[in-house]
Amino acid sequence: MLHWQFLGTSAGIPTKKRNVSALALGQYQRKPWLLIDCGEATQHQLLHTDWSMHHLSAICITHVHGDHCYGLPGAIASASMHKRTAPLTIIAPDAVWQWLQQTIALTDMHLTYELQFIHVEQLLHAPITLDGFVIETHALNHRVPSHAFKITYTESKRQLNLAALEHAQVPKGKTWGLLQQGQDVEINGHTYDSDDFVIQQQHRACVIVAGDNDTPELLQDACVDVDVLIHEATYTQEVADKVGSFPMHSSAKQVATFAQNTGLPNLILTHFSSRYATKTLLQPLLQEAQQFYEGQVFLADDFQVYHLLKNGESNRLSLFLQSHS
Amino acid sequence: MLHWQFLGTSAGIPTKKRNVSALALGQYQRKPWLLIDCGEATQHQLLHTDWSMHHLSAICITHVHGDHCYGLPGAIASASMHKRTAPLTIIAPDAVWQWLQQTIALTDMHLTYELQFIHVEQLLHAPITLDGFVIETHALNHRVPSHAFKITYTESKRQLNLAALEHAQVPKGKTWGLLQQGQDVEINGHTYDSDDFVIQQQHRACVIVAGDNDTPELLQDACVDVDVLIHEATYTQEVADKVGSFPMHSSAKQVATFAQNTGLPNLILTHFSSRYATKTLLQPLLQEAQQFYEGQVFLADDFQVYHLLKNGESNRLSLFLQSHS
Repeated sequence: MLHWQFLGTSAGIPTKKRNVSALALGQYQRKPWLLIDCGEATQHQLLHTDWSMHHLSAICITHVHGDHCYGLPGAIASASMHKRTAPLTIIAPDAVWQWLQQTIALTDMHLTYELQFIHVEQLLHAPITLDGFVIETHALNHRVPSHAFKITYTESKRQLNLAALEHAQVPKGKTWGLLQQGQDVEINGHTYDSDDFVIQQQHRACVIVAGDNDTPELLQDACVDVDVLIHEATYTQEVADKVGSFPMHSSAKQVATFAQNTGLPNLILTHFSSRYATKTLLQPLLQEAQQFYEGQVFLADDFQVYHLLKNGESNRLSLFLQSHS
Repeated sequence: MLHWQFLGTSAGIPTKKRNVSALALGQYQRKPWLLIDCGEATQHQLLHTDWSMHHLSAICITHVHGDHCYGLPGAIASASMHKRTAPLTIIAPDAVWQWLQQTIALTDMHLTYELQFIHVEQLLHAPITLDGFVIETHALNHRVPSHAFKITYTESKRQLNLAALEHAQVPKGKTWGLLQQGQDVEINGHTYDSDDFVIQQQHRACVIVAGDNDTPELLQDACVDVDVLIHEATYTQEVADKVGSFPMHSSAKQVATFAQNTGLPNLILTHFSSRYATKTLLQPLLQEAQQFYEGQVFLADDFQVYHLLKNGESNRLSLFLQSHS
């Protein structure tokens, strides 16, 4: 079961209640996880969660702006002080990698583990698999090169075929367990073939986490088989019109309209302007999104945990809130 | 009245309760202030205080380690997003300045104001004055070049000489006010000279804020006329002995012994190892300090505000706690 937690949902600058961008994503109750964006104080946010830097597989950075990457040096330095030894993958624009190299050299940082760099453009429609996560990137449109990460996880489950077991009169108990684990079993000269009594079930879950972007339509093709789109909606359309096009961000209306036209089942909006200092002030964004989109839509908040639950043929997104410890 | 607030008191890594190093220092109820060190998430801490980035005179960085400077890019970028226009002075080691230049160039940072760099070594025993703060630096001993900032502020007050006014039978009211402001006053052909009725009082306050350092004795000469020394005490002597000399930090015993031998009136210890996760765990450092030092000693905590109050001939340090808003 894919699940993720928002560590920062504010655009540009932190507020008293929201940090700048970061999101932790993993497979429920399995240790490897991905960190997508790493704004300043992401390591501070992590102190109040269950995600451990020891088990982090990769840090994926959408673009070079500070509110998406200034937490990187502190996070990797602290992992080192906690004696991490496993190599850590950094998937990022080249400028972020250059900046990290300069930071390490100039600030006397000595890592206890290796950083392995993958250029974000290397994964454009060419996925890699890391600890079971299939990761590919899609180009967006912003003031600097910005990307979306499409992450797919397929969970395989071997379920016993009860009807077949009963029909063949296989004795219950240890034998059933061995068959489920894939072992053939011989009883009184008769061999029971595991494959005859097991149904392979595959649960595929797919999420797109987009960086800053003023053209959601760029994700049209990428969104075809996606369960959830997590996309910035920095302000309402009214505010976007006042601000003008220079910042190159999306409005709630824009993203909602795209999600509706693409037939996306679930949408989470994040990266809200600091002018929306309270949840009440943020409500117009939800209302605007609901006006243009008939699917399930949420406004992200710091420390919210989302789980993608299987529900019959389709994936259904359910929201749980984890208290701030 | 000089006052300051700790924004971070943890060494190396943040904990749930303590951030990494930063301290805000100013003259009570006057706007210009100094930020000494700027660990990651210093701008987040500032959101919960009354210090405004608009009125910041200078950022002084003791040394290049990340827990003392990784908050710098975010802090200066956010000041820009809040449309600061006044130039900002950065007093720091050359490596910090190089890192900042690289960060600005590589992460698409566009400042609305100018940064003015002063190399920390330029102020070695050669003070400059910024908005009334006299700042000089003193070299310390650490794994990288590290410095202490000695900050002196002299407050001038013009007090009316009541005895002289009564003796000369100067009429009370507006005349007294004008004399205090430095204006001579003519009444019925007689001129009252302001200087004859005003006493110039000067209150000098002096604080040293030291960076990481394993040799407090290096501050011997600098401490002669100092009211308060703020110095790291990363652990107790017992832990320091176990850890060994490599980290090049001070123990509570070391700093207390130095303060005692130098006759310092006030001492504040800070920069505590994250192993001291609670106030109870930290108590042995206070006990150790009190064992070797007879002056007034405090253990710093995040968001504590200290005021240096004049008390007769000597300055007396009083502690106020400001609640976390």
